[in-house]
Amino acid sequence: MNNRFEEKTVASEVLFEGKVISLRVEEVELPDGKFAKRELVGHPGAVAIIAITDDNKLILVEQYRKALNRSIIEIPAGKIEPGEDNEVTALRELEEETGYGAHQFNYLQSFATSPGFANEIIHIFVAKGLYKIEKPAQGDEDEFINIIECTIEEAEQMVLDESIYDAKTAFAILYAKKLIDN
Amino acid sequence: MNNRFEEKTVASEVLFEGKVISLRVEEVELPDGKFAKRELVGHPGAVAIIAITDDNKLILVEQYRKALNRSIIEIPAGKIEPGEDNEVTALRELEEETGYGAHQFNYLQSFATSPGFANEIIHIFVAKGLYKIEKPAQGDEDEFINIIECTIEEAEQMVLDESIYDAKTAFAILYAKKLIDN
Repeated sequence: MNNRFEEKTVASEVLFEGKVISLRVEEVELPDGKFAKRELVGHPGAVAIIAITDDNKLILVEQYRKALNRSIIEIPAGKIEPGEDNEVTALRELEEETGYGAHQFNYLQSFATSPGFANEIIHIFVAKGLYKIEKPAQGDEDEFINIIECTIEEAEQMVLDESIYDAKTAFAILYAKKLIDN
Repeated sequence: MNNRFEEKTVASEVLFEGKVISLRVEEVELPDGKFAKRELVGHPGAVAIIAITDDNKLILVEQYRKALNRSIIEIPAGKIEPGEDNEVTALRELEEETGYGAHQFNYLQSFATSPGFANEIIHIFVAKGLYKIEKPAQGDEDEFINIIECTIEEAEQMVLDESIYDAKTAFAILYAKKLIDN
C-alpha cells in the first residue's frame, strides 16, 4: 500500500452512523507539518456486474436515485452485506435485480468511486453465459427496478441523452464494447 | 429528466454542512405508498481531465486520499468552485495539478460517481495538444501531488497492482486506449 504524502490523523469525530453510510470529520497533519480538516463518508462497499447475453446485449437496470432526484440506468449493483463474500454478493444482486444466473462469472477489478470524500469501493464482475432463473430471489422491498437489455450502440446513445449517467456504467460500456469487438 | 419510480420527499433533516460535503436524511414515499429513509450526501460536483500528450502518454497524478488512508493515482481532477464554469475549472485544474495547457480541450461526458448516496457529478474533458505552461498557477496549499506520464500499457499495469484504484481513472484508461488505437 502506497503512503506517499501521508496525512496522519490527529483528531477524529464521528458525526453520524446511519444504516448505509457514516460521517466523520478528521483533523490531519499534512506532509509539510501544517494541519487540515477532512470530511469523510464511510460506506460498506459494493459490487457491480457487467452482464453480457449470448447475443451481445448488455443487461441494465433503471431505478430511481434519490441522491440525484431522478431515475438513471446502471449496470446491476448492490451493497456488500456484513461478512458476505464479494462474489456471493455479486451473484445474488445479479439474480435479484435481473433474474439471471451466469455460467461464466469472473472478477475484473475494483475501484473507489469518490476517493475525495468517501471510502466506497466497487468490485466489478463480468457475467457471461447468462440463463434465466425460474424463481429468482427477490431483492430489497424498497427497490423498484426496470430491466433493460440493449446493444452497445443503444447504451452509447443513452450516455448521450444522459439516461446513463453513472461512472461504473460508463466504464462498463467501454469494457463491454472491447470484449464484444475482440 | 426521467422520474420513473419517483420517491417523493416527505421529510428532510440536514445533519451536517461542511466545507466540501453536506449530509441529510430524507423520509421518502415509495411508488407502492410505503416509506423509507434515504441518507444523502451533497457535493458541489467536480471535473476530471483525460490528458494525452503528443507521444500518446496519459497524464496522471498521485495524491494521498484520506478517505482511503492511502495514496492512489488518478487523472487530474478537482471540485467546481461556486459560480465557476465547468470548462474553466477543468483548464484551471489541469494547469494547477500538471503545469500543462491544452490546444485542444473538449467536453466528453458527465456521470454520477456514487448515485446510491451522493449527488456528486464529474464532468469529463479530453485535453490534447498539450504544452508546458512557464509559470503555472499553484493549486490548493493542502494538496501534495506527484505527476506521472505513462503509456496505456503502464497504466493498465497500475490497475492490476491497484496503484490506480479509482472509477473515473479506470474509465479514462479505456477511453484513452480507444482514442489512441483509432
